[in-house]
Amino acid sequence: MRVLYSYILLLFILAEPLAKAQNGIIVFQSDFGLKDGAVAAMKGVAIGVSPTLTLLDLTHEIPAYNIWEAAYRLYQTVPYYPGGTVFVSVCDPGVGTERHSVVMQTKSGHYIVTPDNGTLTLLAEHLGIQEIRQIDETTNRLKNSNASYTFHGRDVYAYTAARLASHTITFEQVGPKLPNDVVRLPYQKAEFIKGIANGNIPVLDVQYGNVWSNIPKTLIDQLGLKAGGTLHVRISHRNKVLYDKAIPLVKTFGEAAIGNDVGYINSLLNFSVAVNQGNFSEKYKVFSGPDWTISVSQ
Amino acid sequence: MRVLYSYILLLFILAEPLAKAQNGIIVFQSDFGLKDGAVAAMKGVAIGVSPTLTLLDLTHEIPAYNIWEAAYRLYQTVPYYPGGTVFVSVCDPGVGTERHSVVMQTKSGHYIVTPDNGTLTLLAEHLGIQEIRQIDETTNRLKNSNASYTFHGRDVYAYTAARLASHTITFEQVGPKLPNDVVRLPYQKAEFIKGIANGNIPVLDVQYGNVWSNIPKTLIDQLGLKAGGTLHVRISHRNKVLYDKAIPLVKTFGEAAIGNDVGYINSLLNFSVAVNQGNFSEKYKVFSGPDWTISVSQ
Amino acid sequence: MRVLYSYILLLFILAEPLAKAQNGIIVFQSDFGLKDGAVAAMKGVAIGVSPTLTLLDLTHEIPAYNIWEAAYRLYQTVPYYPGGTVFVSVCDPGVGTERHSVVMQTKSGHYIVTPDNGTLTLLAEHLGIQEIRQIDETTNRLKNSNASYTFHGRDVYAYTAARLASHTITFEQVGPKLPNDVVRLPYQKAEFIKGIANGNIPVLDVQYGNVWSNIPKTLIDQLGLKAGGTLHVRISHRNKVLYDKAIPLVKTFGEAAIGNDVGYINSLLNFSVAVNQGNFSEKYKVFSGPDWTISVSQ
Repeated sequence: MRVLYSYILLLFILAEPLAKAQNGIIVFQSDFGLKDGAVAAMKGVAIGVSPTLTLLDLTHEIPAYNIWEAAYRLYQTVPYYPGGTVFVSVCDPGVGTERHSVVMQTKSGHYIVTPDNGTLTLLAEHLGIQEIRQIDETTNRLKNSNASYTFHGRDVYAYTAARLASHTITFEQVGPKLPNDVVRLPYQKAEFIKGIANGNIPVLDVQYGNVWSNIPKTLIDQLGLKAGGTLHVRISHRNKVLYDKAIPLVKTFGEAAIGNDVGYINSLLNFSVAVNQGNFSEKYKVFSGPDWTISVSQ
Repeated sequence: MRVLYSYILLLFILAEPLAKAQNGIIVFQSDFGLKDGAVAAMKGVAIGVSPTLTLLDLTHEIPAYNIWEAAYRLYQTVPYYPGGTVFVSVCDPGVGTERHSVVMQTKSGHYIVTPDNGTLTLLAEHLGIQEIRQIDETTNRLKNSNASYTFHGRDVYAYTAARLASHTITFEQVGPKLPNDVVRLPYQKAEFIKGIANGNIPVLDVQYGNVWSNIPKTLIDQLGLKAGGTLHVRISHRNKVLYDKAIPLVKTFGEAAIGNDVGYINSLLNFSVAVNQGNFSEKYKVFSGPDWTISVSQ
Repeated sequence: MRVLYSYILLLFILAEPLAKAQNGIIVFQSDFGLKDGAVAAMKGVAIGVSPTLTLLDLTHEIPAYNIWEAAYRLYQTVPYYPGGTVFVSVCDPGVGTERHSVVMQTKSGHYIVTPDNGTLTLLAEHLGIQEIRQIDETTNRLKNSNASYTFHGRDVYAYTAARLASHTITFEQVGPKLPNDVVRLPYQKAEFIKGIANGNIPVLDVQYGNVWSNIPKTLIDQLGLKAGGTLHVRISHRNKVLYDKAIPLVKTFGEAAIGNDVGYINSLLNFSVAVNQGNFSEKYKVFSGPDWTISVSQ
């Protein structure tokens, strides 16, 4: 009886850390596209480490070398996976240069295997860094792969992720602990000054051409709008104003006529603009990146 | 012994319905594309409900807001999955408006989680409706997601599908039963009148540019063609004739010279036309949709 | 004790062949694209055979009817999967004609289910043929599918692959053994003559526009280059020279300035050329195929 009790106690003690232990799921992201065998080769290496792993994809359509977008897609997606999930992100223009190959454990218990080149900017900020380890390639590298210098995604990242996700190695066995910081890309933060919410356009909702800002719902709430109210939205690229218009803030696209511009809170709870059943980005030549700014006032 | 016997009997009684019970497989379809994290977020929510689920994809390249094509892809694919598979289809131009969020159980034992906006038109017609339930979002909605109004696919559909597929909830627990009908999109049905088989072009075989009709092999058989015979095919967009030609009906593309037009029975057993190793759609500017008609005679 | 000893001995004897037995993993490749339901229907048939199968993708973006590229993607990817993995490759311009439907077992223990139309050219050469069997469609064909003549990928290849991968049938039960050869596509082999390494350009690294040759690192080594040395690279299409330049041989792109041309050894250990963070193929109008040649000298 005492044994049973101890066992139950043990379960309770273990419950929290176990929830964050690697769960056998790997999610892959890259700028490789899906037209060749690169992604499939990464998965082959992973499933070769352990056939019980669950292999999923975030996206492989990150524009080539666009580290900012890689960072953004992780920020958009990682929180929806259970703690213990291992992510591999390979957008690596500097492959083979000095950047570290790392595994970051977030405070939420997710693991990200990636070059530390800015890819971790937004996750570090939003989920927090629990611990970072540099991949020790003397042990965590696919056997017989050292004559190849260019495919770290397959030979190091996928291989290490699979060993970690399958408990073949512990997080400590990834390699030496690094200081708790990452390479961070500069970008315009959201702010509320003198009745105006300012921010930038980190990314487009590419499939629909909707324009997403980094201004959170909480800043929009500060504008004190009434239900069905109107917002003044201005969008600039560097110093050139491309859009300057009053539009309704809607809860659902169905509130507006087809073809009308609307402001709304997107699935990440940030302010966004769209043409109802149209393409805002194409219509107004509005795109995304650190040099785009958006301001919202009453 | 009697207990064992009863148990075996019970197994026999359960066998048929069990075969149709949810089988842990979820197949996702959307118009989200694969360039951002939307599909991956849906899968994250699902795998967070149960790590044992098998997550597959139908397509995420449904043209934006094209409900008809979403309906067609389901019709084309669902029957090839075992009964008990749960499908999630999110093509939802009216997100947030009055359309119901539903789960339809087909007579074949498949489950479709979707907005009831026409997406179920062809499955209801071809597989039959066993029962429809409206998703009760007070219980079947991802925790802490109610401040977001726009991503039903992730917060409601993927979440409900995962709970259903993993037996976390029963079909009854999806929500209240609705009358056994769905929103249906109007379209031209196939018919055989005075020696002519008429129909429409629901969809293209996009990768190859082949043109698929909704005229079944059985209507073509009524033309009484001999082996290697010739068909007269006319294709119109509204009242404009774009193609009017006699072509051979082949069993395999190998029967025709490269570059020749052929009629054939496609993998859904419907009449189709193609340019052998070419692109019929591009060559003759023939596309698909409810306003396209095709007629076949001897 | 003797029993135990025999058992251990038995395990040793079985170890090698068991490692090559089907492992429940199927990897799909095709020229179907992902816009319609064709790939999803193949997977539905497979998962219907056994719900425990792991279904992965190589690529479905093989250019339509491009058997050479299908062959190349398999060559690029198959070796990274554990022995016992079953591949399905459907690039089949001659569907329905005389070509055999086969399963090739490689000497490395991989299985490839495909039309024997040239798709197996490079695997047969690089991994070696252990045994080839013709698919007996009287048993290895989806029930009730024989009225359709055009979707072998779903009705025969996916179905047979799933039965093989799930041990529903043995390799012998695929069908009758064929002679140990396959249809081979002609192409220019790599050679080293009078101080010049000659070869062809089998494929582009499409996402980045890098140009991959079939000249292995071992031939480049014969040029006796010193560290940081310069290579003379000439690329021709038929008899027209499109590129003729001296460029550095780098170990990592980071060694060169952005925008500079470099030679490097790619992830398959073959010589390749690139513009650092640019698109070599677009810049110099260099593409791939059997009629492209590349030569490298000091």
